[in-house]
Amino acid sequence: MPGLHHLDPAGWARQIRAGDRRALARGLSLVENDQAAGERLLAELFPAAGHARMIGITGPPGAGKSTLASGLARLYRDRGERVAILAVDPTSAFSGGALLGDRIRMQEHWRDEGIYIRSMATRGALGGLAAATPRLADLLEAAGFERILIETVGVGQDEIEIARAADVTVLVLVPGLGDDIQTIKAGVMEIADVLVVNKADRGPERLEQELRAALTLDGRDDGWRPPIVRAIATTGQGLPALAEAVAARETALEQSQGREPSRRRQWRHRLDTMLADRVWRQLGAAHLASELDQMAAAIAAGRLNPYRDQVLDNFLRRFLPKP
Amino acid sequence: MPGLHHLDPAGWARQIRAGDRRALARGLSLVENDQAAGERLLAELFPAAGHARMIGITGPPGAGKSTLASGLARLYRDRGERVAILAVDPTSAFSGGALLGDRIRMQEHWRDEGIYIRSMATRGALGGLAAATPRLADLLEAAGFERILIETVGVGQDEIEIARAADVTVLVLVPGLGDDIQTIKAGVMEIADVLVVNKADRGPERLEQELRAALTLDGRDDGWRPPIVRAIATTGQGLPALAEAVAARETALEQSQGREPSRRRQWRHRLDTMLADRVWRQLGAAHLASELDQMAAAIAAGRLNPYRDQVLDNFLRRFLPKP
Repeated sequence: MPGLHHLDPAGWARQIRAGDRRALARGLSLVENDQAAGERLLAELFPAAGHARMIGITGPPGAGKSTLASGLARLYRDRGERVAILAVDPTSAFSGGALLGDRIRMQEHWRDEGIYIRSMATRGALGGLAAATPRLADLLEAAGFERILIETVGVGQDEIEIARAADVTVLVLVPGLGDDIQTIKAGVMEIADVLVVNKADRGPERLEQELRAALTLDGRDDGWRPPIVRAIATTGQGLPALAEAVAARETALEQSQGREPSRRRQWRHRLDTMLADRVWRQLGAAHLASELDQMAAAIAAGRLNPYRDQVLDNFLRRFLPKP
Repeated sequence: MPGLHHLDPAGWARQIRAGDRRALARGLSLVENDQAAGERLLAELFPAAGHARMIGITGPPGAGKSTLASGLARLYRDRGERVAILAVDPTSAFSGGALLGDRIRMQEHWRDEGIYIRSMATRGALGGLAAATPRLADLLEAAGFERILIETVGVGQDEIEIARAADVTVLVLVPGLGDDIQTIKAGVMEIADVLVVNKADRGPERLEQELRAALTLDGRDDGWRPPIVRAIATTGQGLPALAEAVAARETALEQSQGREPSRRRQWRHRLDTMLADRVWRQLGAAHLASELDQMAAAIAAGRLNPYRDQVLDNFLRRFLPKP
């Protein structure tokens, strides 16, 4: 995307806030691919962000998350909200039929200016995915979307990180996909605010039973009891109930504390990531690179024991100020 | 595990090196759960580590990785090597039949002192999984295992991180599990040294074709062309060919550069993670926590624009020395 850097961030931000979809698309690409230039754009847009409701949708491959997200977006749109879907998508050479099919179905919404769908490729975003997602959400918020669905394809630490950026997290599961596909990290279970048993026409009872057992085992600190919603995303069945469960969670959050504490917690977490990354880049990239190379060589050759005698702490002490 | 902290690390390390499996098991638990105490033990064991060959085995859920790892371990054991399997396992309330069955089958090896199997639960290891795995591998190396198979269940950034700790990485795929399950991050594809088409009795041709196309598309910088091996892990078919492909990669690595550069690269990467984590804990935990809380609150309230005017850099400048 040549030439983007020469655009004036303020003018660009005005175009995005005025609803120019092309400016928005290019802005998202910039934020995804170029941290420094992206932040200049975000700096202009930040005052307009912070008002959307964010819903994280996660679960194992094959659970029907895309179809569910698409249906849910339609439902919110029919209620008059402006909706964006941000799909964090482990694109690859293999990404084949099913996923692509879902995406094409989702594109049917495209002609409606009140719905925006963005797939975020994870290619090359090693370690940066979880950090990039909330930045893209900031941009979509600033563009005036009132409801942002963040859909993550996969199960893992990344998904937990991404879910933290949402106000409400929905975990989508399906009966009978095979036990090992249902293997969900306990961490995801603990942050799921609403559980969906999708493809509920396939005999949802056993899965629901397991979910209830798991919920009893792992009580949540905040006292919220995640409801279990049956759905058949392909027919739209259960979507109103899902929207209702999400709304109940939003109401509970707002009654208990309002929205600011939740935003504050999210920013506290984002700051950790942003600053840890920045600190290490400043220290590491600048003057530590060759010393780190030497240290790694000494360890690899067995001359230095990294676990011994606070070797690492001593190393850092030379570069960090006294507390 | 009460009382572990009172054990003398040197004596404990001696027990582990003498082949005491109970001491090893408790050592692994310590390293997994308690970073500081674990490092005291690792400090004793480090001089004995660094000699094992490590094979990373990764791929999507349901690809048969556990069975394949188990068979491969048996094969190496039959050749006289001492083998350990480190299975990074997203255990959860759901982890059901298939996975458990595999584990039980794997436990059949247990009576043989030359095989050791360890499942590493990821519960609660938020962000720490990738860092903990190579520490556990260090411990297994020091315990005298010559071949360590690191099996990761899942597909994601974590798996890429974990694979970096291995000398050779094997990506296991299966035909016909559904396209979205085959969706593998391009990053994983790029670091896979050997590709296995498991359950090859299900018509492997189309998948192989796709793999070959992907390999042609993404040439590797190091010139290695990942071979594609057909296997049926449940019958053991293809395992000798897999071992041969792994050996070919090991030979190529050693001929091109010996083992030290690879270890050095691994340690360089581990140092980044270890130090970035430590730096941030020192800065963050000590005297920045309340300032970060205030900053997050100001951002959440819209009073501070984190993207503007190098807000973060200015914040850090107060706590970092000049370059």
